[in-house]
Amino acid sequence: MEKRLKEIIAEITLPDRKVQEQASRRQDELTKPRGSLGVLESLSIQIAGIQGRACPRIKDKVIFTLAGDHGITAEGVSAYPAEVTPQMVFNFLGGGAGINVLARQIGARVVVADLGVNFDFTPPQAPVDLKIAKGTKNMLMEPAMTREEAVRSVMAGIDLVNREASQGLDIMGTGDMGIGNTTPSSAITAVLTASPVVEVTGRGAGLDYKGLASKAAAIEMALAVNQPEPSDTLDVLAKVGGFEIGGIAGLIIGGARRKVPVVIDGFISGAGALIAHALAPQVKDYLIAAHQSVEIGHQRILKHLGLRPLLNLDMRLGEGTGAALGIFLAQCAVAALNEMATFAEAGVSGQEE
Amino acid sequence: MEKRLKEIIAEITLPDRKVQEQASRRQDELTKPRGSLGVLESLSIQIAGIQGRACPRIKDKVIFTLAGDHGITAEGVSAYPAEVTPQMVFNFLGGGAGINVLARQIGARVVVADLGVNFDFTPPQAPVDLKIAKGTKNMLMEPAMTREEAVRSVMAGIDLVNREASQGLDIMGTGDMGIGNTTPSSAITAVLTASPVVEVTGRGAGLDYKGLASKAAAIEMALAVNQPEPSDTLDVLAKVGGFEIGGIAGLIIGGARRKVPVVIDGFISGAGALIAHALAPQVKDYLIAAHQSVEIGHQRILKHLGLRPLLNLDMRLGEGTGAALGIFLAQCAVAALNEMATFAEAGVSGQEE
Repeated sequence: MEKRLKEIIAEITLPDRKVQEQASRRQDELTKPRGSLGVLESLSIQIAGIQGRACPRIKDKVIFTLAGDHGITAEGVSAYPAEVTPQMVFNFLGGGAGINVLARQIGARVVVADLGVNFDFTPPQAPVDLKIAKGTKNMLMEPAMTREEAVRSVMAGIDLVNREASQGLDIMGTGDMGIGNTTPSSAITAVLTASPVVEVTGRGAGLDYKGLASKAAAIEMALAVNQPEPSDTLDVLAKVGGFEIGGIAGLIIGGARRKVPVVIDGFISGAGALIAHALAPQVKDYLIAAHQSVEIGHQRILKHLGLRPLLNLDMRLGEGTGAALGIFLAQCAVAALNEMATFAEAGVSGQEE
Repeated sequence: MEKRLKEIIAEITLPDRKVQEQASRRQDELTKPRGSLGVLESLSIQIAGIQGRACPRIKDKVIFTLAGDHGITAEGVSAYPAEVTPQMVFNFLGGGAGINVLARQIGARVVVADLGVNFDFTPPQAPVDLKIAKGTKNMLMEPAMTREEAVRSVMAGIDLVNREASQGLDIMGTGDMGIGNTTPSSAITAVLTASPVVEVTGRGAGLDYKGLASKAAAIEMALAVNQPEPSDTLDVLAKVGGFEIGGIAGLIIGGARRKVPVVIDGFISGAGALIAHALAPQVKDYLIAAHQSVEIGHQRILKHLGLRPLLNLDMRLGEGTGAALGIFLAQCAVAALNEMATFAEAGVSGQEE
């Protein structure tokens, strides 16, 4: 299966530079001072290149919210009990969570998938079943998962994109739910960005300072116990990762392969992006960073990936909530490119030379 | 008429603190870690207080795009010729400008009003007629307008809000169009924030460095010639302002008086907000800063008003384009407050104590 993953990664191509140039020229002809729509202009050009369309299309939108549980919660690394993971999955299915509300605002489908929740869901009240195991192992004691499970979690994300693409997929957002999942995200960030643990470990859903200190200590311990090899991305994911994080890495790889712009959410999605980028550096051109999370490790991730976040609203909810807002901005960017009149069409005089 | 303006200003009341507390309590009961929606939470609480509704309503949305011409353009302070002002008004009426595209994305009406364009519009292809004069005077030679005209421009903005309120107005955005209007905006900012001209003067729609230097010199000269009195806001508006800027100040006062949240756009709207705030400090609680413009004086304005911008996307188009994006975020904030399930409703466990 690891061989199949490598083949898929090799299928990712670069965005279409010619189409980007076309879009860029059109931006300069629209009735506004050149560059005056700022980041919206570059965003529209990026999306044009990804889709290979000078007039990009953003109609079918999907937020993928991947859920998983974490053995490390036994160490008290989260302010919430682990049973909240399945409870929130039911909340997603019922339409009452933050991501449901924001996805409705942008007309996006929310696809909830179980990558590793410690609960037996029964249809019809069930997420998409991509369960690798009922939660990771406690990485303080042993690797969070096997290498084979790590590969399967990434492949599950890729497959999920394929499945949704058949129903229409012009842009996608990533999201997560998993009590305790800032802990593996910090561990991954520390390893893949070569950062001290304390500099990439935050308060998650609401730890106090004492909780934060013991969380950082747990991560240090997990790294010492497991010795993940920074140059072997799947080893890092297996030893200190999470199933939904591997799934998010797969979403990103799968999106890039299908030429779908991928709007990444906050810190956990960022950890998934680090994994995806380490496996397949070409994904970078397909990534749009929705926002800057409050979680301190996120800044390090965005810097490492060379991404500028569209928003900075002190958010730290996850689920894909930031991604939903980012998709709206992408849609505005594309609408301006497609729908604004040119100077010639509107009979407006250009800049004086 | 100045007396009437004072009476209107006296009618502005404070937002409803009790309703704000209700909204704040509800935020803490929703299925998310407390505070994890960041600025969206405080925004929803602000809007609840302004509207006096614990479940605020954002259905009827209006962007006001006010246009005016500027005598100072005779001095070559803009990269575009003055005829672009009426040309862009036609573009607004035809639906091809940036603001039309973005307003469609949020389902907002665009109300285009002529506060002082140097052109005779003929219905039906005409903006709302609030013309004070066909452009301001060249403030390098004399005051931009009379004090009476300054008052009339503010009153015109107030009246425009009243007119639109009768058709439904839950939230409003401000916008501008006027070749040369960053020049009076910089002049106003320099006077009302007590800042050196060079620190609040930028490249506008696209001046080169030489153009920027001569623009700053023109502003210095205009201030020296006219000697606007900082403590007399209407004197500042009259001597170095613009008709659309006075109109925007009126929009803000009119919105606050009617308990409508006012999303202000970039630099020119910011200059209007400085005028409104100096006339009526109570408006502050009604203001939402949509974005941080590239135009350097804007930062000074936001600091002076104590406002944090929602977005920072290197935009500098004006027209209300930033305000349109800000209204979307306000709508998301309110939707989360109104539509998310509580912990009790969703059967989700709360934070461990």
